[in-house]
Amino acid sequence: MKEVRVGICGLGTVGGGTFNVLARNAGLIAGRAGCAIRTVRVATRTWRDDIDLGDIPFSTDIMDVVNDPDVDVVVELIGGYETARELVLAAIANGKHVVTANKALIAVHGNEIFEAAAEAGVAVTYEAGVAGGIPVIKAIREGMAANRIDWLAGIINGTGNYILTEMRKGRPFNEVLQEAQDLGYAEADPTFDVEGVDAAHKLTIMASASFGVPLQFDRAYTEGISRLTPYDIAHAELLGYRVKHLGIARRREGGIELRVHPTLVPQSHLIAQVDGVLNAVLVDGDAVGQTMYYGPGAGDEATASAVIADIVDVARTIQAGGQGRVPYLGFAPEAIEDLEVLPMEYTQSAYYLRIQALDRPGVLAKVASILSEHGINIESIMQKESEVHDGRIPVIILTHTVQERQVNQAIEELEALDEVDDQVVRIRAENFN
Amino acid sequence: MKEVRVGICGLGTVGGGTFNVLARNAGLIAGRAGCAIRTVRVATRTWRDDIDLGDIPFSTDIMDVVNDPDVDVVVELIGGYETARELVLAAIANGKHVVTANKALIAVHGNEIFEAAAEAGVAVTYEAGVAGGIPVIKAIREGMAANRIDWLAGIINGTGNYILTEMRKGRPFNEVLQEAQDLGYAEADPTFDVEGVDAAHKLTIMASASFGVPLQFDRAYTEGISRLTPYDIAHAELLGYRVKHLGIARRREGGIELRVHPTLVPQSHLIAQVDGVLNAVLVDGDAVGQTMYYGPGAGDEATASAVIADIVDVARTIQAGGQGRVPYLGFAPEAIEDLEVLPMEYTQSAYYLRIQALDRPGVLAKVASILSEHGINIESIMQKESEVHDGRIPVIILTHTVQERQVNQAIEELEALDEVDDQVVRIRAENFN
Repeated sequence: MKEVRVGICGLGTVGGGTFNVLARNAGLIAGRAGCAIRTVRVATRTWRDDIDLGDIPFSTDIMDVVNDPDVDVVVELIGGYETARELVLAAIANGKHVVTANKALIAVHGNEIFEAAAEAGVAVTYEAGVAGGIPVIKAIREGMAANRIDWLAGIINGTGNYILTEMRKGRPFNEVLQEAQDLGYAEADPTFDVEGVDAAHKLTIMASASFGVPLQFDRAYTEGISRLTPYDIAHAELLGYRVKHLGIARRREGGIELRVHPTLVPQSHLIAQVDGVLNAVLVDGDAVGQTMYYGPGAGDEATASAVIADIVDVARTIQAGGQGRVPYLGFAPEAIEDLEVLPMEYTQSAYYLRIQALDRPGVLAKVASILSEHGINIESIMQKESEVHDGRIPVIILTHTVQERQVNQAIEELEALDEVDDQVVRIRAENFN
Repeated sequence: MKEVRVGICGLGTVGGGTFNVLARNAGLIAGRAGCAIRTVRVATRTWRDDIDLGDIPFSTDIMDVVNDPDVDVVVELIGGYETARELVLAAIANGKHVVTANKALIAVHGNEIFEAAAEAGVAVTYEAGVAGGIPVIKAIREGMAANRIDWLAGIINGTGNYILTEMRKGRPFNEVLQEAQDLGYAEADPTFDVEGVDAAHKLTIMASASFGVPLQFDRAYTEGISRLTPYDIAHAELLGYRVKHLGIARRREGGIELRVHPTLVPQSHLIAQVDGVLNAVLVDGDAVGQTMYYGPGAGDEATASAVIADIVDVARTIQAGGQGRVPYLGFAPEAIEDLEVLPMEYTQSAYYLRIQALDRPGVLAKVASILSEHGINIESIMQKESEVHDGRIPVIILTHTVQERQVNQAIEELEALDEVDDQVVRIRAENFN
């Protein structure tokens, strides 16, 4: 039985988990892959006493892995953009397959990397980059292969989902963020997680694999959860909705929607029940309908599970004697369609609007008339005398689906009203039908 | 660009869906597969006016498909055991790859079929046989490849789940079954669905692919939902549980558990929220933890989605120039472990017990003492004076996890008590931790 030899770059959380799982389940993994999968070299700058490398050679220079003629598969787990890019391109140039957990790298440099890999005839896989241990890239690129995927929506950042779950108990954002940092769920600088950048990386990748379009991270719309209040979360609940931080991609006539933002989802939908640090991705195909993939989106061994699944995929393909089997984005390069991401103003959504208005007769009529002038239909409206505060009363409106542009114009006019002296709160809503 | 040529056997619900989706999404599927996938022959006895075969040759003899030298992949959608077995073995003997949606065939004749296919060097895939459009076989055989899978549990029969969802409203089994038949969710003879045979077929397949053991359908324990009452379903809810018809497989020291039966699951667990005709499979791996796969478990195009995903897999492998890539059960034949299914008495579970006892002093003490003598610990107990009826009072007990054998013995002794003149109701319970 031939063996497939792996070189691991980076021995942090995921790198350590990958090394350990490969060692612990070596026999079982060999049984599945049809050959042994052996770690033959490691490069790391973060030395870990808790990992026993045995007599496996290691160094602090990642290029030692890339240049080692014994290595068949380079596993890139160092993160970041530029060094990772150089590492991966060098590995490809040396004819090595690449497995990465680096969503930022793929979302930003994926087009260039896949082109180089296609030329060199090597695999580059990235399951671990999206939704951690959940095999959702496999589901999209292979399991959904019969379908025209119409849209997908995912809870793809565990930190954000943990914070929103806690905020449902009435706790403010800053307090929960602090707690998440203390628990190690959130980084010292939480921007990537709470402002949606991390989710936008993952969404960009899933969208391209779903629709067969080039990676366009710089065109993704990103809005975080830091300005959400327990007040709006509670009122969304009263309307039958739950607020989740979703990445949403949708195929539209002439382009695709690509957006990360807080979103009202029906409480009755399964995705509303996904709480805490867990992830879930909902994928809608024209043949299958809605499917959902749920599990841990982070963690050392959960992410390692996806890294190793990719390694086994590569090993099985090598064993079978074939070339790279599944195209990088799930579509043959010549089948990639040059569809652009639509500007945010042209996306479509329903909206939760909270208008802080003076408690005077006639205000509601003015609000309704502005919405109507912009073609915005109201699904629900909520205004409670008991909530008058400082002479102001919140008017909460849930609209039908409409173009973002129309809502922008309406909000501008609403904010210009004498009776409205605060910003209108706007949270998008999806009904998944 | 080469093409892969498909012959479809059976043009019923799934066959028709497969033909239509292959035709409708031909361009997209070719883009994903890297080559055109063309239906070149159809055999059907159930002629359908609503399907336009164009100039594709068809006949009523399935062997015409198997013997057609133009066919690369035989798609078996006729169902049943013996004819399907002959068809598939003949296709394999002719060197053709096989894609099937027939869970009964694989669960019962899979070992023989896979052996023949291995010898002939062809692929036999069966994603559509388990949980319809949900790519759960792919998740298990490929996505979880790093993991020692410890257990899995699934809602894998939509008819049964629909009935249980309706019974939660207090409706009796027979009334809901009739309705399900009227709606077309249940067959005229509902035995396969409501007695768990269909679920046991699917469970058998998932267990073998998860643990790397031979298919052992005849060893699966099967218990249906027809004897469940709205009373017990309501009382399970009071205890914080929901009743679901689950297929459960667990790897144990010295054997595997393989069982289909009504099961109490915690209301707070995501799988408890899966209602109606939908399916979901929960898979627990040592590295990744719990993941769940959710979607439609039946339907023409939903099942076709899985059939075509398998065809695309085969086409991608042919294109890549390799042999069958993923082993039939996810493990290389030499890695299949000869672990047997444990007799039901040696499986472990928690239990919901309802004892219909005479309302006399001292009865509870006798009940508790019998349980204690058999090493059965009580987690919750519920007895309400208001439920006395005909001088009898129900005692409802939720136990901790214990061996089935101990519970059998305790039930025997409970039923022998003078104060108990009715059968003890027993429903197993799982906490998924």
